[in-house]
Amino acid sequence: MSNPFTNFQGKPATTPGVFSEFETRLANRNSGAILETMVHDITPTGTHYLLTHFDVPIIDEAAFELNLSGAFDAPYSLSLDDIRAMPSQTVPVTLECAGNGRARLEPRSFSMPWAYEAVGTSEWIGTPLAPLIARAQPRADVVDMSFTGADFGYDNGVGHRFGRALSPEQLADLNVMLVYGMNGTPLLPQHGAPLRLIVPGWYGMASVKWLTDIEALTAPYQGFQQVRTYRFRQDADDPGIPITKIRVKSLMVPPGIPDWLTRKRMTPPGPVEVRGRAWAGNTPIARVEFGVDGVWQDAECAPHVSAHAWCGWRCTWQAEPGWHTLQCRATDADGNVQPIDAPWDHSGFGNNAAHTVEIYVQAQNVAPST
Amino acid sequence: MSNPFTNFQGKPATTPGVFSEFETRLANRNSGAILETMVHDITPTGTHYLLTHFDVPIIDEAAFELNLSGAFDAPYSLSLDDIRAMPSQTVPVTLECAGNGRARLEPRSFSMPWAYEAVGTSEWIGTPLAPLIARAQPRADVVDMSFTGADFGYDNGVGHRFGRALSPEQLADLNVMLVYGMNGTPLLPQHGAPLRLIVPGWYGMASVKWLTDIEALTAPYQGFQQVRTYRFRQDADDPGIPITKIRVKSLMVPPGIPDWLTRKRMTPPGPVEVRGRAWAGNTPIARVEFGVDGVWQDAECAPHVSAHAWCGWRCTWQAEPGWHTLQCRATDADGNVQPIDAPWDHSGFGNNAAHTVEIYVQAQNVAPST
Repeated sequence: MSNPFTNFQGKPATTPGVFSEFETRLANRNSGAILETMVHDITPTGTHYLLTHFDVPIIDEAAFELNLSGAFDAPYSLSLDDIRAMPSQTVPVTLECAGNGRARLEPRSFSMPWAYEAVGTSEWIGTPLAPLIARAQPRADVVDMSFTGADFGYDNGVGHRFGRALSPEQLADLNVMLVYGMNGTPLLPQHGAPLRLIVPGWYGMASVKWLTDIEALTAPYQGFQQVRTYRFRQDADDPGIPITKIRVKSLMVPPGIPDWLTRKRMTPPGPVEVRGRAWAGNTPIARVEFGVDGVWQDAECAPHVSAHAWCGWRCTWQAEPGWHTLQCRATDADGNVQPIDAPWDHSGFGNNAAHTVEIYVQAQNVAPST
Repeated sequence: MSNPFTNFQGKPATTPGVFSEFETRLANRNSGAILETMVHDITPTGTHYLLTHFDVPIIDEAAFELNLSGAFDAPYSLSLDDIRAMPSQTVPVTLECAGNGRARLEPRSFSMPWAYEAVGTSEWIGTPLAPLIARAQPRADVVDMSFTGADFGYDNGVGHRFGRALSPEQLADLNVMLVYGMNGTPLLPQHGAPLRLIVPGWYGMASVKWLTDIEALTAPYQGFQQVRTYRFRQDADDPGIPITKIRVKSLMVPPGIPDWLTRKRMTPPGPVEVRGRAWAGNTPIARVEFGVDGVWQDAECAPHVSAHAWCGWRCTWQAEPGWHTLQCRATDADGNVQPIDAPWDHSGFGNNAAHTVEIYVQAQNVAPST
């Protein structure tokens, strides 16, 4: 077919320290968490990160149908009212974009230039997926269940609706939800209204928004977003391995006060309470450490907000005058430790390197002027 | 005082077409509207633009006080419960950042690199400010009323809480509100909770967030954000003139379907309904024109959402194969016309140039593949 987009695709080279207009426009369009709101267990509505591949589809709820088709013995469709009438659950889930931290790799992949902020925790309201799948009676030879959204566009010259798949084994292992609400209100358009998937513990690409179709497949799913992207690759020729579970990670609320343009930080000397969050998919956090100029101390961790959500952490830093480098790193219950340096990935996926904040401690406490 | 931030300030040079890491980080942190959600009269919560100068302060509502002080005969303080008990009004107001469109100027000012998306319309819930001011009995020699937020930081080496002022004449002329809710819910932290100012018709810098102090002044207000920034300037040495009312402007929902990375657009040939929004502070929109390769047609305008909010517009475009440049421009009831080219401003403020979208029309209608 006639496709003008091929010309703009491939992955243009990037230059360390500077960003192209296309990357900056993606940063304008996609929005990250405001890190200081991490003091809240639940990310305030509107600061949860948003990565929108194509356009936000505006869907008529009255006409909406979720269709279960393919290799089912009893395929069927559901209206939104049908789904809302099913047993409801509200579950806090921490979601993170697989590309979070991409801009901190060198060389940097040409895509959305996230630094640290593509993460958030919402209370998702919906119904468990498993009983709906069971009701459709998947045939014994089903190897993948695909989930397709209403959003259509081009990526690398290929036109497609956004879609992902999970195997029957993955579906049995994960508490996947069909979601129609968040934080006590109806699901917002940009978060997938009227219906989306939430796959707790996995990077965000699995939680398909604007979900309209579930298809039972007897051959492995070949959708673009499953096969061509969202794989860990060493180089462009590497077939790669699928991206699944969220890696262990922690972030801090940058302490002190900011400079508007550079976001560098300053604080008076003395004790400073530092707070943050840590998460590792569905695995509990075992330890969080806070580092000052490479010297580490253990932070105190609060209970996880849910089995699928982050925990809070805090510790006291005795701030001494001068410039300092603050860092945090988490360890999960399986013994995975957040690395200091970014793990290499050709597309900048899965960067869980320690969060680093530069801060200047004043020689003495100076009262704020107005 | 000891201030390390001076070193990072001034306005570094920018390079056309590429953006510094600092600018890109600001684009990560500050979020714009998702243009396709402009089909809604009210911007979905969470896609209203956000420009946060310093950090979002986390304020204890129970301890919160709004203090009216200075040249009043009857100064007083109010709790949130006091304010919520006052007569309530819900008003749709279109807010736009004065820096919207900055990244489209050349040379480009070093700051938040907005392209088009720093605009939004919310239903703000609060109480009129005027009766509260009157109750405090301003003295006859008051020349400015200052509004100060809880947010503190550095800008250009100067530490200050964000603050702005309005003269008694401006206060008499504008329907200023004290706001504690939006879109049917309590005000969100990142939008100024628990209390903010909304100054309908003016660029967003006037609508002070996290408002804690109102002071009656008998000499002109000298706050940094009033005197040093938010002024139209021809060059760095120009004292400039204050930025006030929002200029006439229109945007379109980009038609067709996008390419993920470049955001370029494609559509099949034939009739395409194009929709958008137009606004001009508190002045009604008189006309919206839609242009294809420089040939203009009138669009149909819907009533304004409120006297302080945008209107919708739509028209039909007969799309013919090939690349096209789509534009829109509005004219307000005072005869101000949105310009085709960006008006020069040293800091990139007030850019209301016509919205321009590049789109490719296919030779024939091709069914979407999945």
